[in-house]
Amino acid sequence: MTAADEQRPWVELEKLVEESDAERIEAFLEALPPGEPARALSHLHPQDQVRLLTALDPEHAAELVEQIPDAQAAELFEHLEPQAAAAIVDELPSDEQADLIGDLPREEADAILDAMDPAEARDARFLSRYPDDVAGGLMITEFLAYAETYTVADVVDDLRANADEYREYNVQYAYVTSDSSVLVGVLQLRDLLLARRGQAISELMLRDPLTVADLANLNELHDFFDRHPFYGIPVTDEQHAIIGVIRRAAVEEALAERSDRNYLKSQGIVGGEELRSMPLFLRARRRLSWLSVNILLNVLAASVIAFYQETLAAVIALAVFLPIISDMSGCSGNQAAAVSMRELASGLVRPAEVLYVLGKEVLLGIINGVALGLLIATVAWLWKGNPYLGLVVGGALALNTTIAVSIGGCIPLFLKRMGKDPALASGPILTTVTDMCGFFIVLSFASALLPQLQSIP
Amino acid sequence: MTAADEQRPWVELEKLVEESDAERIEAFLEALPPGEPARALSHLHPQDQVRLLTALDPEHAAELVEQIPDAQAAELFEHLEPQAAAAIVDELPSDEQADLIGDLPREEADAILDAMDPAEARDARFLSRYPDDVAGGLMITEFLAYAETYTVADVVDDLRANADEYREYNVQYAYVTSDSSVLVGVLQLRDLLLARRGQAISELMLRDPLTVADLANLNELHDFFDRHPFYGIPVTDEQHAIIGVIRRAAVEEALAERSDRNYLKSQGIVGGEELRSMPLFLRARRRLSWLSVNILLNVLAASVIAFYQETLAAVIALAVFLPIISDMSGCSGNQAAAVSMRELASGLVRPAEVLYVLGKEVLLGIINGVALGLLIATVAWLWKGNPYLGLVVGGALALNTTIAVSIGGCIPLFLKRMGKDPALASGPILTTVTDMCGFFIVLSFASALLPQLQSIP
Repeated sequence: MTAADEQRPWVELEKLVEESDAERIEAFLEALPPGEPARALSHLHPQDQVRLLTALDPEHAAELVEQIPDAQAAELFEHLEPQAAAAIVDELPSDEQADLIGDLPREEADAILDAMDPAEARDARFLSRYPDDVAGGLMITEFLAYAETYTVADVVDDLRANADEYREYNVQYAYVTSDSSVLVGVLQLRDLLLARRGQAISELMLRDPLTVADLANLNELHDFFDRHPFYGIPVTDEQHAIIGVIRRAAVEEALAERSDRNYLKSQGIVGGEELRSMPLFLRARRRLSWLSVNILLNVLAASVIAFYQETLAAVIALAVFLPIISDMSGCSGNQAAAVSMRELASGLVRPAEVLYVLGKEVLLGIINGVALGLLIATVAWLWKGNPYLGLVVGGALALNTTIAVSIGGCIPLFLKRMGKDPALASGPILTTVTDMCGFFIVLSFASALLPQLQSIP
Repeated sequence: MTAADEQRPWVELEKLVEESDAERIEAFLEALPPGEPARALSHLHPQDQVRLLTALDPEHAAELVEQIPDAQAAELFEHLEPQAAAAIVDELPSDEQADLIGDLPREEADAILDAMDPAEARDARFLSRYPDDVAGGLMITEFLAYAETYTVADVVDDLRANADEYREYNVQYAYVTSDSSVLVGVLQLRDLLLARRGQAISELMLRDPLTVADLANLNELHDFFDRHPFYGIPVTDEQHAIIGVIRRAAVEEALAERSDRNYLKSQGIVGGEELRSMPLFLRARRRLSWLSVNILLNVLAASVIAFYQETLAAVIALAVFLPIISDMSGCSGNQAAAVSMRELASGLVRPAEVLYVLGKEVLLGIINGVALGLLIATVAWLWKGNPYLGLVVGGALALNTTIAVSIGGCIPLFLKRMGKDPALASGPILTTVTDMCGFFIVLSFASALLPQLQSIP
């Protein structure tokens, strides 16, 4: 490889895919630095991405799939043969199986599940029924459980007999269950070291272990792991039977994904993550779906200006300040909305606490509104030499900033209470309201002071 | 407690803090559902928050501190007596100690370190020297290491003798070191179960274990854990000595925090996280620092309008479309910038790949530009019955959207190459450029077609 090719590993990869040489592809991917296999895959033509996954053996393909974003994996799997897809999915950990299956269209998902190992498929079906952001959707179903009648020797023998398989589980606890698979205790494998072989595990185990319900949501799980130093915690169903284990890392990962989604939504990327490896028209359509709602809201807000056409014609300098007032109020409001989003996500504020938020924002809105208003008033006065222009423009910005900050802090709470997604809707709603208010305030102030403003060139 | 008080646990908490009754406070916090202690604390007056932490015994106080956001903890610790603060910090895990110490002003940090247990303080000082987002800043220094000359019996005896202490470590691996504390192997504690007591651990250990360097960054760590199913991985310094262990969960948590910070920055919350429990003037000042830069950029962009005052006076209807074009181009550009931010963060695109991004965005910009342009052209034509107005407004939006999408995708890459923070600067720069371009395009188009537009009422 030349130095230039090292920067663009997909050039070489494309050639290898062309030749369908599984062994050389594997060796090539293996030799790339961390992160590069995923990046190289993303830069391939979508068709070549599919060919690459098909060429690799399922285990290596699964390793690669784990490294790429979920949205990209789902996109790829839609174009794989169900047989090939199933072989790769079989090799994924159970929680990633469920994520992937859940992201696929119904028909493709069923075709893959039908072609999978029946036991794996059953687990994946079971897990994919849970929403992504509750314990059931985040847990893995690979865990060790022993009947409470077992002895230390029984457990150690089982561990020895299945050492290879369990190595993949990466376990440090075993769960102890009653006849009806109700969880009765937890056994730290390390403690077996210090025990007699004949001892019953029911003597060693910790009774009444902490558990989480299968429907516990992400915030509850986050709080749980904040409170307890465990790596993993058993998940139980309504009958207190253990159905899986949720790992701390899975919760942190889901939180990171939620933050990312919220960031993307706040910037108008909807319908899940967008990657540049996705087809052009899909990307254009998704972005446009949000933009087209936004432009209608924009037209609505700007129509306020049309009502004051005469004032504006008389004091054309105002036209310079309309976009400034609209943009700045939007910015101030967005700051308050972002803080509310964060406090909602981390559970520091509840959707019902509108008055609390309002109390914390109104004063701040006044302070910043007055500061920004004074600044813009000075600019306007100095520019046209007319103090009334400064008064109109500065007063309007001060008032509208106060309004924007106050409602910006509350909108996410209202949306959450109505069951809407605040990350998605806060921005457009806030902008529309503050634009309308801003245009109305500045133009009605100007209409009232028209005699003093008409001399402005 | 009444039902209303249950919704507002800080009312009761405030009373208990007033009475400084540590035991009752602890019992009260213990009884609250997950997440509520942190929320209750946040709702207290800052002074009461300090009194609450001082009243609790250090261990319980540390538990509470772990549940609140880092920014809030740092804020609180600035107001604690160094002695009291040190006692609480002593109880925190080493990575959180380092985070907290690192977030404090130099002087407060030193006062607390001086009052801490000397061994803990040494570790905290050592860790806090690393940036937050490299392995050294994210690792814990609590780990088990044994000399390679040890036998299984030696290790088991040590585990037994220190069972209580190690329980807190939550370990499943022990590390095996040479004389010079160079890492030579890793021992899965589970494997001790299956070994003879007299066996040397050097026979059982896995040789040449995978490690990460202390300066490995967050993306490298994320890629590492994506590739390997481990819960934790040893961190080594330049001499290959083991200096800590980094856990998968710590990496995921740091990624979530980075996403949150990026989201907040993109919405204009700078200087770290803002919480409503922070003092009003601090919050106002921080928000204003970003807004005041923004308003200057806004004035700069809007000054373009002033140059075309005569065109605008002749066709006052254009004033309605100026904010629409400015806002919509900003939205389209922000979508592209957000996708670049995500792809940069996840390593799918490199700062140097401007041409790749441009290639992926230009066409998309044209497609969406034409779609939005047609829409606004139709609105303008129907409103005033003048097709030329539609042409000017629609053409300008189409062209400016293409520009906004193209440069929006590239700005984060440029900023990253220059070592600037793309999350913070992309939005304001993008908005300024697209506003200026948008105002210029629509008003110069209108000037060129002025004879056809002058009849518009």
